Amino acid sequence: MHEYRTHTCEALRKENVGDIVLLSGWVHRKRDHGGLLFIDLRDHYGLTQCVIDTDNPGFKVAETLRAESVIRVKGKVVSRSEDTVNENLPTGHIELFIEELDVLSAAAELPLPVFGEQEYPEDVRLTYRFLDLRRERIHNNIVLRSDVISSMRRRMVDLGFREYQTPILTASSPEGARDFLVPSRLHPGKFYALPQAPQQFKQLLMIAGFDRYFQIAPCFRDEDARADRSPGEFYQLDVEMSFVTQEDVFGAIEPLMIGLFEEFSTKKITQTPFPRIPFLESMLKYGNDKPDLRNPIEICDVSEVFRGSGFGIFAGAVEKGSVVRAIPAPGAGGSQARSFFDKMNDWARGEGYAGLGYIRFKDGEALGPIAKNLDDARLAQLKEIAGLGDNDGVFFACGKAGEAAKLAGFARTKVGQDLDLINEDEFKFCWIVDFPMYEYDEVEKKLDFSHNPFSMPQGGMEALETMNPEDILGYQYDIVCNGIELSSGAIRNHKPEIMYKAFEIAGYGPEVIEERFSGMLNALKFGAPPHGGIAPGVDRIVMLLADEPNIREVILFPMNQKAEDLMMKAPSEVSMKQLRELHLRTVVPEADKS
Amino acid sequence: MHEYRTHTCEALRKENVGDIVLLSGWVHRKRDHGGLLFIDLRDHYGLTQCVIDTDNPGFKVAETLRAESVIRVKGKVVSRSEDTVNENLPTGHIELFIEELDVLSAAAELPLPVFGEQEYPEDVRLTYRFLDLRRERIHNNIVLRSDVISSMRRRMVDLGFREYQTPILTASSPEGARDFLVPSRLHPGKFYALPQAPQQFKQLLMIAGFDRYFQIAPCFRDEDARADRSPGEFYQLDVEMSFVTQEDVFGAIEPLMIGLFEEFSTKKITQTPFPRIPFLESMLKYGNDKPDLRNPIEICDVSEVFRGSGFGIFAGAVEKGSVVRAIPAPGAGGSQARSFFDKMNDWARGEGYAGLGYIRFKDGEALGPIAKNLDDARLAQLKEIAGLGDNDGVFFACGKAGEAAKLAGFARTKVGQDLDLINEDEFKFCWIVDFPMYEYDEVEKKLDFSHNPFSMPQGGMEALETMNPEDILGYQYDIVCNGIELSSGAIRNHKPEIMYKAFEIAGYGPEVIEERFSGMLNALKFGAPPHGGIAPGVDRIVMLLADEPNIREVILFPMNQKAEDLMMKAPSEVSMKQLRELHLRTVVPEADKS
Repeated sequence: MHEYRTHTCEALRKENVGDIVLLSGWVHRKRDHGGLLFIDLRDHYGLTQCVIDTDNPGFKVAETLRAESVIRVKGKVVSRSEDTVNENLPTGHIELFIEELDVLSAAAELPLPVFGEQEYPEDVRLTYRFLDLRRERIHNNIVLRSDVISSMRRRMVDLGFREYQTPILTASSPEGARDFLVPSRLHPGKFYALPQAPQQFKQLLMIAGFDRYFQIAPCFRDEDARADRSPGEFYQLDVEMSFVTQEDVFGAIEPLMIGLFEEFSTKKITQTPFPRIPFLESMLKYGNDKPDLRNPIEICDVSEVFRGSGFGIFAGAVEKGSVVRAIPAPGAGGSQARSFFDKMNDWARGEGYAGLGYIRFKDGEALGPIAKNLDDARLAQLKEIAGLGDNDGVFFACGKAGEAAKLAGFARTKVGQDLDLINEDEFKFCWIVDFPMYEYDEVEKKLDFSHNPFSMPQGGMEALETMNPEDILGYQYDIVCNGIELSSGAIRNHKPEIMYKAFEIAGYGPEVIEERFSGMLNALKFGAPPHGGIAPGVDRIVMLLADEPNIREVILFPMNQKAEDLMMKAPSEVSMKQLRELHLRTVVPEADKS
Repeated sequence: MHEYRTHTCEALRKENVGDIVLLSGWVHRKRDHGGLLFIDLRDHYGLTQCVIDTDNPGFKVAETLRAESVIRVKGKVVSRSEDTVNENLPTGHIELFIEELDVLSAAAELPLPVFGEQEYPEDVRLTYRFLDLRRERIHNNIVLRSDVISSMRRRMVDLGFREYQTPILTASSPEGARDFLVPSRLHPGKFYALPQAPQQFKQLLMIAGFDRYFQIAPCFRDEDARADRSPGEFYQLDVEMSFVTQEDVFGAIEPLMIGLFEEFSTKKITQTPFPRIPFLESMLKYGNDKPDLRNPIEICDVSEVFRGSGFGIFAGAVEKGSVVRAIPAPGAGGSQARSFFDKMNDWARGEGYAGLGYIRFKDGEALGPIAKNLDDARLAQLKEIAGLGDNDGVFFACGKAGEAAKLAGFARTKVGQDLDLINEDEFKFCWIVDFPMYEYDEVEKKLDFSHNPFSMPQGGMEALETMNPEDILGYQYDIVCNGIELSSGAIRNHKPEIMYKAFEIAGYGPEVIEERFSGMLNALKFGAPPHGGIAPGVDRIVMLLADEPNIREVILFPMNQKAEDLMMKAPSEVSMKQLRELHLRTVVPEADKS
């Protein structure tokens, strides 16, 4: 017999009745029934009910044992009586009648119970994360995370990709977020940096001819924490492909996402091809570039309905260059009272906007102050453009295009939620495409890159040389699921001459590229393939699949909001010897000195 | 038709003759045959021979194009004439007759050619690693590495393990090698550290109940480079299991190793169970604790043969407590001249030892100065103990046990190599077991841990309380392949009370454990399962499979011996702003200032 177990705590079934078995695990819960003590024994795999009676010398030990102690029990598998069968438990038809009980590790008093799912303060959970992780929900989340990543890897390999590890100790990058630095011992005064993403390395891999790369890549950003972002490190499914167009990247990622989400969820999932929504269309129809397509509401522009109309506020605004966006509220005209509409207006004011006008269609009538000021022709035009029926409602966001789009987007979400229009049983994916390369920076009063300066402009050099810069689009795209941006991606600019030109348009001379991006520029000179990629966030995908709004629930050992590991006590002070070896002196502000 | 390729450069076969196809890739090699220009087009997958004739407007372009430029060619697949078929190339039956040729990226003059396998200085190779990686041998090594790791993962999952990611930003560990530190921005004067190994985290995972963990884990040590160790980072297959004995760990790792090595090598591989060799036996028979079992020579102790014998040097040494170890040289008595034996002696002296005595058996005679001083009975005893035949040779290492074992070990290797006894077509695995827990430290004049203080002592608390400390063995083991230690491992000490006792024996009070290992100790108090693991080095396994003696050949972007990334220019100076944010000042020695 094995020293610790013949079976796991999930393994025993009716067929095992009569077997002498050995189990090891944690005391999950004890119930004292007078002459009998019931112990739910737990391990990673499941639970088995064990029983010990007072005749057994182990009874006294078991009686005094704290929950979460680790024990080993030997005994006979017996059938449960029919009224005590637990159909919810795989082992619920049997129990183990304990003959021998050994304590492998006695537990001290617990700072945090494992049984039950009470909420505990974050600092307690993170200090005793090894206990917190024994709790069913988080334990299952972490197992899910592991299985999701394992499936991602398998699927990527099946798609013809290989995983390659890129360096973690690398150079400080001049762009993007704040780097974590690592002082060099051998080179006084110099530092490595942890990669914010393996962007340059994956492009170098393409230039080195590896064709299809992926990596479950650890990334590091010294940024403050948010609910969906851990301080410090996070993982992305980093992908890059050579000799591809944008559609090839979509063609690789869509089956991956569908397969993954179908494997780990029972929800309905967008099938291939995912909708491709141009950036400008998304800004108009959804008020943002990460639309939640579970929400059926589509915003439309109704400025022309109001131009010259009797509703002076909007008519005047439109004259001065503002726009009016309509946010339909399906069925709300009939089903909701006037207060619903007024509350929505109040909400918009509370958010700092001028307000949300509305029209309430009810049985063919158009109600509310705006409706009164529109003639029948304009009302008919409005219903036509916004696709409104006789019992629908509609809200209006009026303002400069950007502001109106933003308010309309928020209103769309709120109307969708309040009318319960969002189907929680769906994962709806889309691609946002055709991002503009440039935008006018109102602060700097100059043209600048609107997103990634290293994307290939659509139309290549010719577009740069002939088009109005603000009309130039990039081969850049985002993948969005249920309103959450999973990743940006792009077809890269692999031609130095196009890169110089693209920077010139944004007002940067060649010396800027040569100084800041010399490594990449140099590599592109020795034969670079056209290439592109994407990098979906692993943590976000797991959060979606686990239905957890906080990233802390899907990471093994997260740091707290102050970027501290409470369990391992990091960061911590180091010895003078370590600092000397690294040629460093710390400069601690007076206020922080202890 | 796709924008870049209908096929890869490895795909076309006889069946494609007549097809119009599109290929993209690198100009591997050009040959000008007067009216025809042959271009070997290369991508990640293979090579295709392309031909363009002078009539084609692309001819002039192709003629001036440098090797390693990236081109796209469209044309018809044609059969090669029988005398130009290349059976060594999967596409060797066809060639592509180019109709259209486009340059996707022209290459500048190369600092390092890709075609051919000339040696280039390390600094050139690493500065232009993206070119170096295009070369066939290293490209294949990196692909092998990726496939090996992918197979490891698949095999571990099949064995019931799950991969979990442990933190990379963590706490400085008080033991082991030198940490890389990461200054904290939010906590002035404090530092994170990069993990030397996820040792504590994997134990915490077991305590958290995850049962079977693995991770292809990045590890970081600020140590100087060696041929088999990259400066900075390396990867290990980190493994931990709960409720296991040492044999369970072996039972998981052996099929993994056998499967892996059989998948990626045609060499003969040790089958399960791998030999278990106690540490002391290994020191005697092989002169070290990482024996190359491909070498059939086994060392034995022949001190008794020489005690009181006529060979005064050895007899006297044995009297004073030295030992004599015999290193058989099978067949060398007959096949080798006396000079072979004398040269071996010279070699030993060159290495700083007193020398290697020898006896040369030839046709039943015993030759050499030592033989002259041994009577027949002693010679017979020697042949018996060392298993020597009539035409064998034997060398002797005499000295204090440790020194004699060491010299005998080196001599065993040299004799095996010089006599060509090592079968290069085998991977021979073994486990070294039963390491002593303690050894007498001659420098500190006290007892200390000989290896890992956190291993469970064999016999547990009882052994610690009753045995002579130097006789106590640990549940600690090494896995060795062809003389290379792939990993240490251990069953961990999961009981605080045994840990206190084990440290007490080595002269450390409870305050030492509590101060240095409080995190782990604390976790063990809340119900810890018996657990153990191992962590085979990924880089070393790939080196063995790729038959590469230098780790640089199996890593994508290694740093040089001075821990510099020449391509990305790391480490580098950072801005004053970055230093200020991190509350640091650098202290650069005068000599290093530029």
